[in-house]
Parts: sequence; C-alpha cells; structure tokens
Amino acid sequence: MKYQSKLFLLGDEIEEEVVGEGVTRKMMGYDDTILMAWVRFEQGSEGYVHAHPHSQVTYVESGAFDFTIGNETKRLTTGDSTYIPPNADHGAVCVGAGVLIDVFSPVREDFLED
Amino acid sequence: MKYQSKLFLLGDEIEEEVVGEGVTRKMMGYDDTILMAWVRFEQGSEGYVHAHPHSQVTYVESGAFDFTIGNETKRLTTGDSTYIPPNADHGAVCVGAGVLIDVFSPVREDFLED
Repeated sequence: MKYQSKLFLLGDEIEEEVVGEGVTRKMMGYDDTILMAWVRFEQGSEGYVHAHPHSQVTYVESGAFDFTIGNETKRLTTGDSTYIPPNADHGAVCVGAGVLIDVFSPVREDFLED
Repeated sequence: MKYQSKLFLLGDEIEEEVVGEGVTRKMMGYDDTILMAWVRFEQGSEGYVHAHPHSQVTYVESGAFDFTIGNETKRLTTGDSTYIPPNADHGAVCVGAGVLIDVFSPVREDFLED
C-alpha cells in the first residue's frame, strides 16, 4: 500500500482543515482503496457541483442537505445516505448545519497530498 | 458494474435486518468498489473477531465500542473512527449502545447475496 492511515483515529485529535466557506474537513481512515472524510457544513454552505472518477458513498450524520446528482435533487437528513457513481456530477447545499461522512474508492490522493 | 445501489437512500425506508444478538444492519449505498453499512448495537452485543480481504473504515456515529485489531484494543466513542487493513483480525464489543458506519472496499458481495 502507498497510503495507509493509523488504525485508531480519535475525532478530537484530528486536525480540522478549512476546505471552503463554512466547510471544514477531517481525514479519517484510509488506504489505497478507500478513504473516509468527516465534513462539517455551516447552514448555507455548499459543496459545489463537481465530478471525480471515484465511487462515493455519503452518510448524513447530522443536519439537512439538498443533494443533486445529475439532474435529480433530494433533501437528505440525519440517517440518510447517497451513492454517487464514478464521474457523476454532484453537489450539496447545506440547509441545516451538520456533518457528512464522505467515503471514496479508491483513495482521494488529492485529499492526502494537499 | 455488477452491483449498484439507488442514488438516494432514506434511512427510515431501508430494511433493518437482524445479523446477530443485539445487532441489526441496514445496507446503505454501494457499487462494485465500495459498500456502506449502518450497524446498530445494543449494549453488550459484539462483533466477533473475524477477518476479510476487504479494506474497512468504520465511523462511530454514536455509542462506545472496544475495538480490537490484531493485538491492540482501544475504546472508540462518537466521532472516532478506525481503519482495518485487509485480512486483519478485528472485532468490537459494544460498551454503550450505538451505531457504527462500516464501509468496505471492494463491495461485500456476501452482504448483498444473503
């Protein structure tokens, strides 16, 4: 493996980096095949529409988000999730402050090499 | 892709299946390369030590769990996570009722073909 995180990751000890206006991120566990990120959004903040070759699954830990994948938009709240296929255009608008658990396969090298 | 879930998954609409004593599971988003599972544990329930060739990352959504990977045990609580390398022996004892978000790469075919 080129990438491999620690085995145990304590949320309070992980650096929370600013990745956008009202958006911060912590890098959770990962290796070459998978990467989990914890992403906090303030109300009104946004993950702008973009696409990447990675498969993605996202869990709504808290808050409310209007997710758009392709031409379809749906409001997801605590306990919901979304699957984003490779290369699908997707974005989210935070309509209630909260946290998303974003998981990608393979690893997001761009996240680790910032 | 052989496997591909719906794009939007509402937690309340997903079947919660019993997978062990005091342990229930919902299948969240997946495709051939990744699978997310929501797993609820009652206090005292257990994910017995096992191993699989998939890489795994797990997020503690709520509760408290004593995770063992190989010879190392650590208590993880809400907001913590763990990375479990391929083929590593691992298990968890639930010391406070809660939910884990387990994510695997590649897909857990065994979960989908039960």
